[in-house]
Amino acid sequence: MKIALTGKSLVAGLDLAPGGAAFKGVNPADNNALEPAYTAIVAEDVDKIAERAAAAFAEYRMKSGTERGAFLRAIAANIEAAGDDIAERMPAETGLPEGRARGETGRTVGQLRMFAALVEDGSWVDARIDTAQPDRQPLPKPDVRSMLQPLGPVVVFCASNFPLAFSVAGGDTASALAAGCPVIVKAHHAHPGTAEIVGQCVQAAVESCGMPAGTFSLVYGGGREIGTALVKDPRVKAVGFTGSRAGGTALMKVAAARPEPIPVYAEMSSINPVLILPEKLATEGEAIAKALAGSVTMGMGQFCTNPGLILLPAGAAADRFATVLKESLAASPNGCLLNSGITDAYRDALKARSTLKADGFEILHEQPGEACQVGTALYRATATAFLANPVLAEEAFGPSTLLITYTNEDELLSVINAQEGQLTGTIHGTDQDLKSNCRAGYALHERVGRLLFGGFPTGVEVCHAMVHGGPFPSTSDGRSTSVGTMAINRFTRAMCYQNAPQMCLPEELKDGNPLGIVRLVDGNRTKA
Amino acid sequence: MKIALTGKSLVAGLDLAPGGAAFKGVNPADNNALEPAYTAIVAEDVDKIAERAAAAFAEYRMKSGTERGAFLRAIAANIEAAGDDIAERMPAETGLPEGRARGETGRTVGQLRMFAALVEDGSWVDARIDTAQPDRQPLPKPDVRSMLQPLGPVVVFCASNFPLAFSVAGGDTASALAAGCPVIVKAHHAHPGTAEIVGQCVQAAVESCGMPAGTFSLVYGGGREIGTALVKDPRVKAVGFTGSRAGGTALMKVAAARPEPIPVYAEMSSINPVLILPEKLATEGEAIAKALAGSVTMGMGQFCTNPGLILLPAGAAADRFATVLKESLAASPNGCLLNSGITDAYRDALKARSTLKADGFEILHEQPGEACQVGTALYRATATAFLANPVLAEEAFGPSTLLITYTNEDELLSVINAQEGQLTGTIHGTDQDLKSNCRAGYALHERVGRLLFGGFPTGVEVCHAMVHGGPFPSTSDGRSTSVGTMAINRFTRAMCYQNAPQMCLPEELKDGNPLGIVRLVDGNRTKA
Repeated sequence: MKIALTGKSLVAGLDLAPGGAAFKGVNPADNNALEPAYTAIVAEDVDKIAERAAAAFAEYRMKSGTERGAFLRAIAANIEAAGDDIAERMPAETGLPEGRARGETGRTVGQLRMFAALVEDGSWVDARIDTAQPDRQPLPKPDVRSMLQPLGPVVVFCASNFPLAFSVAGGDTASALAAGCPVIVKAHHAHPGTAEIVGQCVQAAVESCGMPAGTFSLVYGGGREIGTALVKDPRVKAVGFTGSRAGGTALMKVAAARPEPIPVYAEMSSINPVLILPEKLATEGEAIAKALAGSVTMGMGQFCTNPGLILLPAGAAADRFATVLKESLAASPNGCLLNSGITDAYRDALKARSTLKADGFEILHEQPGEACQVGTALYRATATAFLANPVLAEEAFGPSTLLITYTNEDELLSVINAQEGQLTGTIHGTDQDLKSNCRAGYALHERVGRLLFGGFPTGVEVCHAMVHGGPFPSTSDGRSTSVGTMAINRFTRAMCYQNAPQMCLPEELKDGNPLGIVRLVDGNRTKA
Repeated sequence: MKIALTGKSLVAGLDLAPGGAAFKGVNPADNNALEPAYTAIVAEDVDKIAERAAAAFAEYRMKSGTERGAFLRAIAANIEAAGDDIAERMPAETGLPEGRARGETGRTVGQLRMFAALVEDGSWVDARIDTAQPDRQPLPKPDVRSMLQPLGPVVVFCASNFPLAFSVAGGDTASALAAGCPVIVKAHHAHPGTAEIVGQCVQAAVESCGMPAGTFSLVYGGGREIGTALVKDPRVKAVGFTGSRAGGTALMKVAAARPEPIPVYAEMSSINPVLILPEKLATEGEAIAKALAGSVTMGMGQFCTNPGLILLPAGAAADRFATVLKESLAASPNGCLLNSGITDAYRDALKARSTLKADGFEILHEQPGEACQVGTALYRATATAFLANPVLAEEAFGPSTLLITYTNEDELLSVINAQEGQLTGTIHGTDQDLKSNCRAGYALHERVGRLLFGGFPTGVEVCHAMVHGGPFPSTSDGRSTSVGTMAINRFTRAMCYQNAPQMCLPEELKDGNPLGIVRLVDGNRTKA
C-alpha cells in the first residue's frame, strides 16, 4: 500500500467550510517542514461532524459483537498493510526510529484485535438477569435485566508521544468503537501525516464493513478552539485524552461546565516513583542501576511511565548506585525529542533544576544538548531537600531522573506521602526488605494504579488485568484504565430493562442466551 | 430495644468542639418540635472526623469479606431490633405512616444483608490474572493481576424522602462499607432522631465487630457549611447524595474544584415519563389509569421514581383515561408531606402550573390543601403546549402528574427528545404497539437508566440487575447505580500488581485461589 496524503480532515460525505489556518508537520531532527499542509477545520464545522456522529450512533450501536469485531479486524489489517507508509512518515514527524514505528504498529494492531476478540466473545457486557417471582409476598418480583450499553459519540485526542498506540486508532479509539461508540479523533499537530495514514485505514474499514460514515471522523485543528468546541458539543458523550496536565485539566473543566457534564478520561502526568530497599540495593544495586538507565532513556524518556524519581537508603551502596547510573546515562547518545515544544520544556525543566541552590541537592550529570538534540540528566537530593523544593517534584518529560536518599523510615514515608497520584510505583526488594517496609509499600499502593515488584514501569503490557490509570493527577479518573480490555468500560453505562418482552431485549439478555455469553443469572455466573 | 436519643453527633472517642447551633426535628403533621435538640458540629470538627476516618481506612480495608459481611449483618440485626423505636420516631418526624417505617426498615435490613452476601461470596472484585510468559519473544510477558480496591473515606448525605433506605445505613452506606470504605454520614435536618437511632445501631456494630471507631461517623450540621467542608476535605475520596438538583449540582461543583477532584454520586431529580401507546390505551386505558393513580399517590408522591409525565395519543380514549385518572386522584385523601420545605415547594409548583395561561393547557384537578395537608393535582397539555412552556417540564415533587397528548409520531418524538436524563421511562403497549413505535422506544431508551414495559417505576427492586441511575440530571453519573449490588463498584478503583510475590498479593489474587472466587485467568472466567 502507498497512501497519498491529502492534507484534509477525514469526514467522508460531509462538505466542510473552506477551512481555517493550514499547518505542516515538522521533522524534529532538522526542523524542516513536511508536505502536505494540513487545513484546520473551523468551529462551525464541529456542528456538522457531531451531528454525523450522533446519526451514526443510532445505527452503529446496533451492530453485533461479531460485526464490530470484523470492523476492528479490518482496521487492524489496513494498518498492517500500511506498515511501510507508517515506517516512513512517523519517524520523519516524530524523530522516533523506524523500529519504534514498526513496534508501535504491532502494538496498535494487537490492541485492535484484542478488542475484536473481546466483543466477539461478548461476555464483557456484564449481562445480569434477575428472574421474576410473580407470587412473591408482599409484592411480586419483576423480571429485571441489565447490561452495559454504549454512551454515544466519543472525542479522542491524539497523544504526541504515541503517534499510533494512543492516537487515531489507538487504545481510546479501539475501546470506544468496541463499546459501540462512534469516534471523532482530533489529530495532534505534531504528526498530522501519520494521523492521516491511520485515518485512511479506519475510513476504508468503515466503508468495506458497511458501517455508517459517521462512525469515524478525523479532524485537524490548530490551538485549543476545535478541541474545546468538540468537548462542548451536546452530542458528544465522553472524551479520551493523553497529554499534558494543563491540557487534561482544561478539558475536565470544559466537560464539567456543560449543561450535561460528561466523563473525561485524561491520562496526564506521572513521575512513577521507584523504591529500592536496602538489602536489594546492597546486593544488586549495580545491575538495577544499569537496567534503570535503559528504562529512563527508552524512547528518549518520552513515556508517561518513565521512572522520574528513585528512592534509596543513603549510604555507600546508594553512592555506588549513583555512580553506575550516572555512567550509564552519560554513555547514552543524545537524540531529538518529539517536537520543539517538548524540547523546550525539557530544557526548561533541566534549567529549573540546575539553577536550584539548595542544601542536599546536586547535579550529577546534565546534558541539555544543542539545537535539535538533547541528552540525559541525573540529579540527587536528600529527602529533606526534596520536600523543601517543590520544583523537584515536577515532571521533567524526557531522559532525566532524580535520586532521593532517605536516612530513616519517617523520611521515606514523608517523600512517598508527598507524591501526588501516579500511574505506577515500583519496589525493588528482597523478601526481607518487603517484610520490613510494609508501611512504605502500603503508602505507595495508595498513590498508584499499578504496583510493580522489580523491573521498571515502561513497557505497559496490553492484557486483561492491566491498569494504566491512577489517582489524580496521573489521570482524571483513577477508577479506570486506558490500556487493556477493562478500558472498554469507560465508554459504557449500565442500562436496565424491566418486564421487557423478548422482542424488545438486546440479544445479550434474551432467554436461552442466544449469544452463549457468561451472565449473572439470579446471582450465579453461568452460560446457561 | 429502647434507644435513648442524645442529640449529638456519633463520633465515638473524639472530643468535638462545644458545637454550633442546635435544631429539633419537626412533626410535619402539626409543626410541633420534637425532643431532643440536635447540636450541629462546627467546621473545625470536620478535620478531626476526616482524620479519624482516614486512620480507620488503613485498617478497615484489610478486613476480609467474611469480616465485613459479619459487620453488615450485625448492623442489620441491630436495626431490626430497633424496629419499634424506628416505627415510633420516623412517622413523627416525616409524616410517613408506621407501615412505611416498618417496610423501609425491612428494605434497609435486606440491603445490608444483600451486600453482606456479596462480599462474603467475594467474586464481585473482578479479580483478573494474566500469567507470565518468561520466554515470550521479543519481550517476556510479566505476571499482571488486578482487582477492585476501595477508594477511601466516603461522605454520605441522608435523603429526606428515604429516612432509612437512603440515609444513615441506606444503600450508599451499605455499598461503601461493603467495598471497604469508612463512611461519614451527614444527617438530614428533617429526621435527626431517626438518623440517631440507626446511627447508634451502626456504632454498636462497629464496637461488637471490633472495627476501628472511625469506620463510621454520623454528624449533624445546619445549612450547607458542614456538608461542603466534608466534601472539600482531602481525605474524603467519594460522595453519595440523594436529594435536590440544586443540592447535587452544588456538591458536584465543590468536588470538581478540589485540588484532587473526586467522584460525586448524586441522585437528583426525575419526572419518569410514561408512554401509553394507542392499542393498549384503547383496550386497557381505564385499568392503567386507576393503577397509575396508585403510583402517583404512593408515599404522597415523594419518590424519585414518581411518574410525573404521561404521554398518550389524543382522542376519545385519552379523554376517558383523563377522566378516570382525575376521579381516582380526587378520591385520594389529603396528607402531609415530609417537611414544610417540601410542602412549600409542592404548592409553589402547583401555583406555577395553575397560573399558566397557555393554549392547549388545562387544570383537570388541583387540591393544594391547607396548612400541613396537601392533595393531588392533575394537568393536561398538548405536545405543542408542553414544548412551548418549560415550566411544565419541571419536577413537582409530590402527588401530581401531567398528561400530554400527541397527535402524530413527530410530536411524540419531540416531547421525548425534549426530556433531560431520567431515572426511568415506562412503555405500555401491545406487541403491535411496540412494533409500530420503535423510534419512540429507542428515543426513550437513550434518556433513561431503566426502561419498564408495563407497570410503574415506583417500587425499585433491590437486586443484581437493578440500575437506579440515569443520564444527567437524574444522576450526576449515569454510568452507575445507587440500588442493587452494582452500587458497590462506585466506591472502588481497579488496582494492578505486576510480578508481585505471593506474600504481597491480596488473598483474592493469590495462586490457588484461596477464597474460591470467580476470576478472569488469561481471559477465562474460572474458579480454578
